[in-house]
Amino acid sequence: MKFLAPLAMAIAFTSLSAPAFAQFQKPEDAIKYRKAAMTVMASHFGRVGAMANGRVPFDAKVAADSSAIVETMSRLPWEAFGPGTDKGGDTRALPAIWTEQAKFKEGADKLQAETAKLSAAAKTGNLDAVKTAFGAVGQTCKACHDAYQKN
Amino acid sequence: MKFLAPLAMAIAFTSLSAPAFAQFQKPEDAIKYRKAAMTVMASHFGRVGAMANGRVPFDAKVAADSSAIVETMSRLPWEAFGPGTDKGGDTRALPAIWTEQAKFKEGADKLQAETAKLSAAAKTGNLDAVKTAFGAVGQTCKACHDAYQKN
Repeated sequence: MKFLAPLAMAIAFTSLSAPAFAQFQKPEDAIKYRKAAMTVMASHFGRVGAMANGRVPFDAKVAADSSAIVETMSRLPWEAFGPGTDKGGDTRALPAIWTEQAKFKEGADKLQAETAKLSAAAKTGNLDAVKTAFGAVGQTCKACHDAYQKN
Repeated sequence: MKFLAPLAMAIAFTSLSAPAFAQFQKPEDAIKYRKAAMTVMASHFGRVGAMANGRVPFDAKVAADSSAIVETMSRLPWEAFGPGTDKGGDTRALPAIWTEQAKFKEGADKLQAETAKLSAAAKTGNLDAVKTAFGAVGQTCKACHDAYQKN
């Protein structure tokens, strides 16, 4: 029987208990995970943005579905910025993340709050509400990327 | 004002309308997206697996949260296997995906059905139900990976 190596590894990596960071055995795994969550988030945020900016016709269902995914994804990356994950993989994360933990967490919390608003706005089916919430999420993304991501 | 290149690109990529595949401007973007969704899915599936296999103590909330993410992620990758995405990026997807579209879709549908069962089982907080559903999801992953993923 062939074996699912990545899945088996994912399962093995969770063999430590308690702290969230223990979900990742190596910094490389944490980096891969947080980047993957960001990739999914950016893709769906982009779909909402295309509608908010009038590049594609507004489709309330697509906006609501993508906004819900953005909201879900916005909760995920943070546990993967644990100690020692500033290197060990392909990352543009700046050291300031680990020296400004309170400020970094504030940004992470703000993103989650703003994406929740975006998701709520999209559920109403009101394009103007989506535009407003989209802009606020975008500003929140930008503030953190400016401060904590290498260009 | 600095510009969020990846976000701007994500938004620009959605400038075509209608088919889902138009969400991705280049095969590389589709490949990156589907792999990211799989990475997030595998990580959370692994966390449930660690509990199902007794490697870490069962935590009903963690199991429910991770299973819900697995369920959400299981819906995402498929639109990113559009025509022409068999190459153009770093992918282990086999050509059979595009020559056996009906069978591939069957596997994708089955995964979504089984992950919905896993999520429902995890919500009950019953570890035995989680174990059963986890096994069924694992078999579904494996069947598709055996058929459609290069080793």
